[in-house]
Amino acid sequence: MRYSDCNREYLEKEYKNLLMRFENIKGMGLSLNMARGKPGKEQLDLSLPMLDVLNSSSAFVGDDGIDCRNYGLLDGISECKKLFGEVLGVDSDLVMVGGCSSLNMMFDTISCMMTASITDGCKPWYEVKNRKFLCPVPGYDRHFSITEYYGFEMIPIPMSENGPDMDMVEKLVSEDDSIKGIWCVPKYSNPQGITYSDETVKRFATLKPAAKDFRIIWDNAYCIHEINDTPDELLNIMDECKKTGNEDLPILFCSTSKITFPGSGVAAMAASENNMKVFKERYNYQVISYDKLNMLRHVLFFKDYNGMLDHMQKHKAVLKPKFDIVLDALNTQLSDTGVVTWTNPNGGYFVSVDVLDGTAKRVVALCKEAGVVLTGAGATYPLGNDPHDSNIRIAPTFPPNDELKTAMDVFCICTKLAACEKLLK
Amino acid sequence: MRYSDCNREYLEKEYKNLLMRFENIKGMGLSLNMARGKPGKEQLDLSLPMLDVLNSSSAFVGDDGIDCRNYGLLDGISECKKLFGEVLGVDSDLVMVGGCSSLNMMFDTISCMMTASITDGCKPWYEVKNRKFLCPVPGYDRHFSITEYYGFEMIPIPMSENGPDMDMVEKLVSEDDSIKGIWCVPKYSNPQGITYSDETVKRFATLKPAAKDFRIIWDNAYCIHEINDTPDELLNIMDECKKTGNEDLPILFCSTSKITFPGSGVAAMAASENNMKVFKERYNYQVISYDKLNMLRHVLFFKDYNGMLDHMQKHKAVLKPKFDIVLDALNTQLSDTGVVTWTNPNGGYFVSVDVLDGTAKRVVALCKEAGVVLTGAGATYPLGNDPHDSNIRIAPTFPPNDELKTAMDVFCICTKLAACEKLLK
Repeated sequence: MRYSDCNREYLEKEYKNLLMRFENIKGMGLSLNMARGKPGKEQLDLSLPMLDVLNSSSAFVGDDGIDCRNYGLLDGISECKKLFGEVLGVDSDLVMVGGCSSLNMMFDTISCMMTASITDGCKPWYEVKNRKFLCPVPGYDRHFSITEYYGFEMIPIPMSENGPDMDMVEKLVSEDDSIKGIWCVPKYSNPQGITYSDETVKRFATLKPAAKDFRIIWDNAYCIHEINDTPDELLNIMDECKKTGNEDLPILFCSTSKITFPGSGVAAMAASENNMKVFKERYNYQVISYDKLNMLRHVLFFKDYNGMLDHMQKHKAVLKPKFDIVLDALNTQLSDTGVVTWTNPNGGYFVSVDVLDGTAKRVVALCKEAGVVLTGAGATYPLGNDPHDSNIRIAPTFPPNDELKTAMDVFCICTKLAACEKLLK
Repeated sequence: MRYSDCNREYLEKEYKNLLMRFENIKGMGLSLNMARGKPGKEQLDLSLPMLDVLNSSSAFVGDDGIDCRNYGLLDGISECKKLFGEVLGVDSDLVMVGGCSSLNMMFDTISCMMTASITDGCKPWYEVKNRKFLCPVPGYDRHFSITEYYGFEMIPIPMSENGPDMDMVEKLVSEDDSIKGIWCVPKYSNPQGITYSDETVKRFATLKPAAKDFRIIWDNAYCIHEINDTPDELLNIMDECKKTGNEDLPILFCSTSKITFPGSGVAAMAASENNMKVFKERYNYQVISYDKLNMLRHVLFFKDYNGMLDHMQKHKAVLKPKFDIVLDALNTQLSDTGVVTWTNPNGGYFVSVDVLDGTAKRVVALCKEAGVVLTGAGATYPLGNDPHDSNIRIAPTFPPNDELKTAMDVFCICTKLAACEKLLK
């Protein structure tokens, strides 16, 4: 029965019932974790053969004709640039392959623009005292943290099923030249799993920002990370920007953290020639060359882009049941309450749940009490400030399936318990 | 015969003779490289077994009890922190293991202090308009480039056989609070192979800088990189700084780039708790965790610090003959000219040669014409500006021994040719 249709007596009964179940769970001494988008052990095992393709008998000379065990090639080995060119949908000349972390490359990119001018006539952002960044919400906490670290005022932009509110984005960036960028996870967004519509991508490509150094951080973290057989399609931002003469707008990122090994994968970025010139100048001072043996290891393992896509099918087979467990639990246990909504993504790493307004923090606290760690409530908003205190990110990938089932039961009970508490106040 | 004792007639004869030999060499179509401190193939092969110790059958759980294939442990796995603690001579709690490049960690360290205050009451360096950095010369070009990129005025500090001129360092840093740091390669310095004397280290530890945020960048790149059986000993800077209450002064760096694979090794830094707090806050925003599989690979390969030292003996066996070739050539072919001096290091990667004043650029150009690439003349000075135009860095490690012999013959002929040219003007 929908909680809004219930009388107080019914809700009190429901509350008591839930409290009893909650106390029972607490007695079980659970220790479960749905906090972060970490691949599970079964997923990690999928890439184990990659640790054998490069060994002491390997040839270490690739397409560039140099010994990959030695210094050299600031922007990565050609085979790897080609592979990431296909992943990102850009010419491989525009690709720079970095270390193991796309987050690190994004941090370095913002860091670069803090102290260097990305384009003629613009000051380094450190000198823009009221610098601002647009943050689609709910979004990825580690994105927001970077702009928080660098002292940006962060402006939340509401997400719809088509992506960020483009009316708001267009208005803001055309009026305010202290707005320097926007964080985007354009496909299977973190946490909602939303893929930006064609119209949204086209509107990004036709933006007319007041700031000549406004940049779109296009973090395509989940570009080939499907979880079912009806994948979303994302329009190619760089192609669209070429049409509008806006190639300098987007800066693209991806990595194999959730394809091979998190923290031991390979990350890459791509941007226009103008942008890459500024970034590469910095990289040239920053490092001699990144880990080419790991690049080679990845290329030998995947062979090519199709090999990478085949590999992703194996991840899909592992992930689909996990997302089904989450969605089944939500459907079975929370649908009839009428106070909880959630997303049903075709890919990515998360299910985004909106619990009753004002209860997200309480739900997370109750879950913790019962031995289930969730992403902190509010984490999906800049400075951790969810104005409705309603959004919770569920990360189903890490726990084994039986634990995930238990964790979701706990989550559903805590969600209802918090809702009853609130409604009975 | 010493050129200074020669009459014009003799020198003209010598010049003609050298010119003939130079033209002969040009006809040989050589293509040799002594430009960078790159390990040679034989050295890279020493670490090949490391590529087999981690494979698909490995256990990926180390001392921390976590799966090293997944996210986690911002400052590295405990085994690796312990190992680098011993390499750097500090408590492992003060160590942060990073990616593959200590240069990258040094860049990030300077970058951090550009926009964040390293200690209470000090401005981020970006706001110090006349910021300066001390650069012992001759020194490492990539150090100087980082401070060049970040807009520091660079003050050259002459090197003696005991290290940087400490009278000058003490005077400058005590008087000028816009001097924010100094670049040091304290053992087997690049390019001279000088190891700082005990007194120099003690004087560093007792510095009283006017700037509270003055920092010593202690790049111990060649800490265990001996080339003969009479190794230098370097006093432990952190121990000395503890005695003087100056623990916040030094920031230590090292890597396995020249122990295992350049670009695919493991880098580490260490600093006081106060300093690490500021750096780790930034790292926490910058990255989730660095490549723990590569850390594990290194630890499994070396087992412990003694294993690493044993491994360095193998490098020594490869490098000693190379340095002998260089020094023999210099002794045999240049000693009697009296216009060239050089260092005779016990370790490191370079021999530093001072040719006749005003001829270094010419020597490098002549060598290039003859097919031998050297480090650019002046590269060992900030902004490439060697006031005497005399210092040339010889990097003997990369070429095979027969090529190295030929390259040194070319170098000696070009050095004498340039000297004669100059003296005959």
